[in-house]
Amino acid sequence: MRELAGDLRWLSLNWATVRERCDLGHAIAACARHGIPAIAPWREPLQAMGIGVAARRIRDHGLAVSGLCRAGMFPAADAAGRQAAIDDTRRAIDEAAAIGARCLIVLAGGMPPDSRDLALARRQARDGIAAVLPHARAAGVPLAIEPLHPMYAADRCCINTLAQANDLCAELDPDQDGGIGVAIDVYHVFWDPELEPAIARAGAAGRILAFHVCDWLVPTRDLLLDRGMMGDGVIDLRRIRGLVEAAGYAGMIEVEIFSRDWWRRDPDEVLRTMADRYQTVM
Amino acid sequence: MRELAGDLRWLSLNWATVRERCDLGHAIAACARHGIPAIAPWREPLQAMGIGVAARRIRDHGLAVSGLCRAGMFPAADAAGRQAAIDDTRRAIDEAAAIGARCLIVLAGGMPPDSRDLALARRQARDGIAAVLPHARAAGVPLAIEPLHPMYAADRCCINTLAQANDLCAELDPDQDGGIGVAIDVYHVFWDPELEPAIARAGAAGRILAFHVCDWLVPTRDLLLDRGMMGDGVIDLRRIRGLVEAAGYAGMIEVEIFSRDWWRRDPDEVLRTMADRYQTVM
Repeated sequence: MRELAGDLRWLSLNWATVRERCDLGHAIAACARHGIPAIAPWREPLQAMGIGVAARRIRDHGLAVSGLCRAGMFPAADAAGRQAAIDDTRRAIDEAAAIGARCLIVLAGGMPPDSRDLALARRQARDGIAAVLPHARAAGVPLAIEPLHPMYAADRCCINTLAQANDLCAELDPDQDGGIGVAIDVYHVFWDPELEPAIARAGAAGRILAFHVCDWLVPTRDLLLDRGMMGDGVIDLRRIRGLVEAAGYAGMIEVEIFSRDWWRRDPDEVLRTMADRYQTVM
Repeated sequence: MRELAGDLRWLSLNWATVRERCDLGHAIAACARHGIPAIAPWREPLQAMGIGVAARRIRDHGLAVSGLCRAGMFPAADAAGRQAAIDDTRRAIDEAAAIGARCLIVLAGGMPPDSRDLALARRQARDGIAAVLPHARAAGVPLAIEPLHPMYAADRCCINTLAQANDLCAELDPDQDGGIGVAIDVYHVFWDPELEPAIARAGAAGRILAFHVCDWLVPTRDLLLDRGMMGDGVIDLRRIRGLVEAAGYAGMIEVEIFSRDWWRRDPDEVLRTMADRYQTVM
């Protein structure tokens, strides 16, 4: 395993971690101030800042871009809705290319409105990803399929295990031409009894494109906005990082925390804390 | 599939569905009043009523007992804690036998205090279940291992997929001597992309001991207390019932709804609604 103490070189800030008190410009400056060498923007603040402006600012501060969040959400009630999601994801690929992002985070999406058919949603997500894959390859921006926790299956993401994401990559990229892989977020996968073989399989195919960290609090008070800072919860972070690195991953460790608690705090405190926890509990 | 319209014979009320406004005695009477032929008590109200009294009352009202909730919760900080859970589960087996319950619902339990080791919790759960299995067999009360949704992995139940429960049954009962099986609750398993083969496998081994229903609401506002009435959410209930019945299950359909909303309502309204939905959307 990589030694993290005294060395922030693999740390990345996902903008959502400070989203209530920082626009993207302030988040870029804060990373530079704290010696955090990478950032993962979201599209809304990126578009608000202007993509050219943001790209320059990121470059001027010497930051890497561990990923762009996010596109996908393919299932829809009709063909027009599905095409709109495909078109939007193609634009996201271009945005990711413009800022030099190492990948685009792709969420499958939940069930279409008024549907109870998860299998249909999964087929629509597969078809959507297949439709944008050529554009991702041409742009040199790989699609990072992120399985989300099963509690989001209905309304956010119908890809809910790493095994499922691996299967999808194998189906859409049988010859390992690349352009598609997975994002592994500890929050979404730590519970999975099949996590170890799934990480090994993703790594063996060279498909681990991103590694996101936070923690699972006990109790968890909200399905969406109660993630913990690393070390404050029950996830065996070192074990999972060990599995991911043993599988060949040598990229960024990106901190993504949706939390009303952390969003209220001074962004400098948030960045200091995450840099400290990265070195001591990851 | 069985025809449910006009025929309540497979409907069972899990007491927790009315727990805020009914003790067990009132719930038994309410079932009889509404033509609901079965009930699944919880241990606390059962003990409060007195097990002999409850057994008589259930018999006098002609009710079947689809299961007793619940025991298990094996992982603990030390050997004494683990032994206490084993002892308690043996008492639960005796209670289940005394009221003629068709199974005892067994929850694995979450991680021990101050632990981040899910694999350890899973081993301790397996060892606990193995320790009580002979007593269950002797008493004629099969253990129904209930996988809970992954959002409960940390603090309630480290068995989170039906595949995992099936594996555990196969490990502890390699010769299919019985005494152990699974409880399938739609709320916990509907998201699982491997649900169909897991149900088929459980059924082929004769191990589906209970089938619990409710619905998954969108949005879900609370991790524990926001389950929906059948038909109010997004679970494809008919599909899952079809899979369970195609796998050979011919037992009760037990309604278990933890919901602040439904707990506030008149129990007669709750029972009327569940009997209606059982016939129309299940």
